[in-house]
Amino acid sequence: MMTSKTVITQFFKDLQDSICSELATEDGTGSFQEENWVREGGGGGSSRVMEGGRVFEKAGVNFSAVHGRLPEKIKQSFDVPKDEFYATGISLVLHPGNPYVPIVHMNLRYFELEDRLWFGGGIDLTPHYVNEAEARAFHLGLQAICDRHDPGYYTRFKSWADTYFFIAHRNETRGVGGVFFDRLQAKPGESISSIFEFVKELGLAFTGLYLPLVRTNSVRNFGAAEREWQLLRRSRYVEFNLVYDSGTRFGLETNGRTESILMSLPPLASWKYNIVPLAGSPEALTVSFLRKDIDWRRG
Amino acid sequence: MMTSKTVITQFFKDLQDSICSELATEDGTGSFQEENWVREGGGGGSSRVMEGGRVFEKAGVNFSAVHGRLPEKIKQSFDVPKDEFYATGISLVLHPGNPYVPIVHMNLRYFELEDRLWFGGGIDLTPHYVNEAEARAFHLGLQAICDRHDPGYYTRFKSWADTYFFIAHRNETRGVGGVFFDRLQAKPGESISSIFEFVKELGLAFTGLYLPLVRTNSVRNFGAAEREWQLLRRSRYVEFNLVYDSGTRFGLETNGRTESILMSLPPLASWKYNIVPLAGSPEALTVSFLRKDIDWRRG
Repeated sequence: MMTSKTVITQFFKDLQDSICSELATEDGTGSFQEENWVREGGGGGSSRVMEGGRVFEKAGVNFSAVHGRLPEKIKQSFDVPKDEFYATGISLVLHPGNPYVPIVHMNLRYFELEDRLWFGGGIDLTPHYVNEAEARAFHLGLQAICDRHDPGYYTRFKSWADTYFFIAHRNETRGVGGVFFDRLQAKPGESISSIFEFVKELGLAFTGLYLPLVRTNSVRNFGAAEREWQLLRRSRYVEFNLVYDSGTRFGLETNGRTESILMSLPPLASWKYNIVPLAGSPEALTVSFLRKDIDWRRG
Repeated sequence: MMTSKTVITQFFKDLQDSICSELATEDGTGSFQEENWVREGGGGGSSRVMEGGRVFEKAGVNFSAVHGRLPEKIKQSFDVPKDEFYATGISLVLHPGNPYVPIVHMNLRYFELEDRLWFGGGIDLTPHYVNEAEARAFHLGLQAICDRHDPGYYTRFKSWADTYFFIAHRNETRGVGGVFFDRLQAKPGESISSIFEFVKELGLAFTGLYLPLVRTNSVRNFGAAEREWQLLRRSRYVEFNLVYDSGTRFGLETNGRTESILMSLPPLASWKYNIVPLAGSPEALTVSFLRKDIDWRRG
């Protein structure tokens, strides 16, 4: 089957619909508010945000399909004479209200620059409290998808996620990671369809990977101490997104739609000075897990 | 009188003492917690933080005096063969609990690189609710200090602050500005003492410029709506510091003491999607004032 940018774009648009619908059903009380926006240079998007739901304190799911001439800033990073591009994708960040439910992020995107076509993206999990069994199930789920497309994908993309989702000034990973990849092109002799199949499967698997964590944990009781810890962990999420995340920084620098880009930031976050969790506490255990190169698949 | 780095360093250290002492007295219930830290490459500092005070929800006052070889990252910005430097300064950010009391920031620093000596710094005010009379008094106070040292300082440094304390992706200034300057060297035929006198006067004037705003406003009643607005304005403060502030970014990139650098971030901040204040509200009025080139001295 021919894979065209129209087909890919429609897939991401439909994925936004189906994910939002499943999230709204899961939440039960919250609903998504939608803004459609137009990009000056060409194309546009749709931003959907839920705030103050039963499960999701804030949930943002963006779709966009933009085209035109590459901004100068990004053009410099490509060695191409021409600069007509097409880009489409979906991006989401979910901030649950219950500290025992992890924050999750997914971004899947497709890019055309003249005759070059590629996909990029990632899914990563940021628990306020790391639960090893849940991290294991999450990674095994990602690996199963990766393995159906390329036996080397999981190891490569898991390691790439560890490197990418890293808060250098804290010497901490953002969470328990997941997968990350960029500029993923078709192998010689294959078409971009083979990569699209992989990206499709990741996108369609998202709710199946994440919603079990919501169902299990959103009923757990928590108190002021757990809420406070959640707000502190969220502040690290802010630090990552504003200091390191290339999508965020690129969007802000190239005059993107600020409210859509920063929809990823938490509804409430806290910075306290010099927090050191008590030795042996669940908070200390979580911090001990925020490092690269943990093989979560081991039980 | 000879101005040596020892004298300058002692001035900043004493200034930290006197400001902390005045702030603690003003607060009445809060007290500063102090950490002394040592820098691997040479020197160190003292970080003082108050949290949960009656007036100050979070107040950080840093002193440092560091020396050694310039980090590679900063060396590139100076056209010098040698790279032995000495730097000392004071940096503070105060986050009051009452939304009617503005956030304030001051940084004063001295730098020696071989035979080059200069000062940099700034004071700027970030009201959650802009009060024109208070902004006027603040700017007139700064101008009076500037004018005693150079008739061109105020106009130049006020404009520099407008440019520096600007959140480009929001198209907003951080607040009502103040003064900002960098690499300020002695004029030909004068010694660095002349600049030091200016910097000293700014530092010694700080509490006199700011504490009246505390006294007038910290007794004002406020409700949930004003608190919510405060948390939203604080999120813009976070965005400025993490995305634009060169001191913060430089510190994080050169492996500075993270907790001292990020002590400027608010105790609690909120990101809500697509907030547009009601036309004619005090919040909308405040946003209308967040632009460059307002001459606050006009009544």
